[in-house]
Amino acid sequence: MSQLCVPSTAVRDRGLAMARRQDDPQPELIELLSGAVIHEPTSLPGQELAGVDFWVPDFLGADPVLYRGIVAAMPGLRVIQAQTAGVDVLLQVLPDGVELCDARGVHGSSTAEWALTALLSVFREFPRFERARQQRRWDYSVTDELAGKRVLIVGAGDVGQQLARRITACDAIPVLVARTAREGVFSIGELPDLLPGADAVVLIVPKTPETVGMVDAAFLAAMPDGAVLVNAARGPVVHTAALLAELTSGRLRAAVDVVDPEPLPSDHPLWLAPNLLLTPHVAGSVLGFGDRFAALLVSQLHRYLHGEQLANVVTGEY
Amino acid sequence: MSQLCVPSTAVRDRGLAMARRQDDPQPELIELLSGAVIHEPTSLPGQELAGVDFWVPDFLGADPVLYRGIVAAMPGLRVIQAQTAGVDVLLQVLPDGVELCDARGVHGSSTAEWALTALLSVFREFPRFERARQQRRWDYSVTDELAGKRVLIVGAGDVGQQLARRITACDAIPVLVARTAREGVFSIGELPDLLPGADAVVLIVPKTPETVGMVDAAFLAAMPDGAVLVNAARGPVVHTAALLAELTSGRLRAAVDVVDPEPLPSDHPLWLAPNLLLTPHVAGSVLGFGDRFAALLVSQLHRYLHGEQLANVVTGEY
Repeated sequence: MSQLCVPSTAVRDRGLAMARRQDDPQPELIELLSGAVIHEPTSLPGQELAGVDFWVPDFLGADPVLYRGIVAAMPGLRVIQAQTAGVDVLLQVLPDGVELCDARGVHGSSTAEWALTALLSVFREFPRFERARQQRRWDYSVTDELAGKRVLIVGAGDVGQQLARRITACDAIPVLVARTAREGVFSIGELPDLLPGADAVVLIVPKTPETVGMVDAAFLAAMPDGAVLVNAARGPVVHTAALLAELTSGRLRAAVDVVDPEPLPSDHPLWLAPNLLLTPHVAGSVLGFGDRFAALLVSQLHRYLHGEQLANVVTGEY
Repeated sequence: MSQLCVPSTAVRDRGLAMARRQDDPQPELIELLSGAVIHEPTSLPGQELAGVDFWVPDFLGADPVLYRGIVAAMPGLRVIQAQTAGVDVLLQVLPDGVELCDARGVHGSSTAEWALTALLSVFREFPRFERARQQRRWDYSVTDELAGKRVLIVGAGDVGQQLARRITACDAIPVLVARTAREGVFSIGELPDLLPGADAVVLIVPKTPETVGMVDAAFLAAMPDGAVLVNAARGPVVHTAALLAELTSGRLRAAVDVVDPEPLPSDHPLWLAPNLLLTPHVAGSVLGFGDRFAALLVSQLHRYLHGEQLANVVTGEY
């Protein structure tokens, strides 16, 4: 007998609505969702999670110590279904024998859309025009454009593929890079040859021991003058001091949705660094997310109840 | 014997470079460009334009009175090749028997790119995040997204088609509208039925007696709550007071690259209107423009010298 734990009534209710709308509604799936335990992962649970075998953690990340306590309260746990594409914190607390599934696909559209918005905003200088507007200045000048640019996309999963499609439609040239080379995808090892020809570099790798600190002073130095770094991955993938130096000298431009630490303390020098567009980790946070995740959750629960192989199982490959 | 007049040495030199790079460089084309008269259209000419038959006016618009004086100084004029997609001022001064060609194609990419940047910036709330960054505030919140939105594109020429392609790649739904219906394009007359279902409306019509004031209080009232108006056409196409009322009430959002008058006076209420993204008529002003226009100019001069039909002749259709 399965028991589900979700972080909010909203997640349960969207899943239920989706399950009831299906062509062939399944009573056991609806029962599982109806009977879900709600546990907001901001506090340690008591005994109420003892029977849980399928856990959906919160969308926003949490402290690994707290998560480890929650996992310990679910001795029968078999599946963790993340709502995020990046699962670095969950990987730290994952017990042996428990399957971890990410929400790839659910975030591809919104994160690719954020990265496209960031690229366009930087090349077309929209932040500068917004600042001029606030000062009521008609600050006309010719700007750069995305069309014709060569954009390295480091991370060739769902987000990378979706971004490549959007960049192609903008008459720019996407160049996909992943840990291992495959058809149409370069390997990370080829970055030293690729970086000098890149007008922009978009990071959408997961946070792993290999990617933490990957974008250091040498990586940035290999990018040509005026190039744009876009971080839609995780803050620690980029060496903040090295990036700050390149922004302050005016040699590079950047757009980041993730920083280290988050939230960024109000006295951090990144806030007022020149040539930087900064958003508060919102790349995946869009209104349409709830329904897209509900669709994934319902299909995963269906597979789970029928003993089928789950989708999106995290293998460490990207 | 033909004579060319261009508004700057930059236009002449880019054209010359392009003509010399061709596989089969044509001496008479190079001679025509080399011998071009340079006349910046900020002053009335003396006798130096008397022999001009092919005129390229300045990129930025000019006063019709001044342009009429310039045209009067070129009695042998046969062709005006605009650098712009909108040619409303040139149409006012066009003598009988002179062909007017616009720069459609040259601006399609940059204007479509501006409109896409504007749509994405509004739905993803990038101006708000830029204001929060200036105040060093981590202003996390869920935003709307472009994916899934229905975007009316009013004006189905090159810019409209290029924008539709980009919108489709963003998983949103473009709906093209033009003066006359055709395959895949609705007619302006169908707008009352289309507006209530539009999440965004992008204006890229030319400025004509029909389009001036087209977006009035009734047009805006037909748009649903929360919809986004994007003006990449001309300022007078939109009734400013009606738009201001909808922005101030918070019912609609907007992004405009063109206003009435331009430049916008520093005490104009649009500057600080809520829910408005405003840029200073930069949609077509990108670095790549010079080379794209040079390619058009060289191909037009080639056709002209060989007595062939010119491209981009303005017929009033859109």
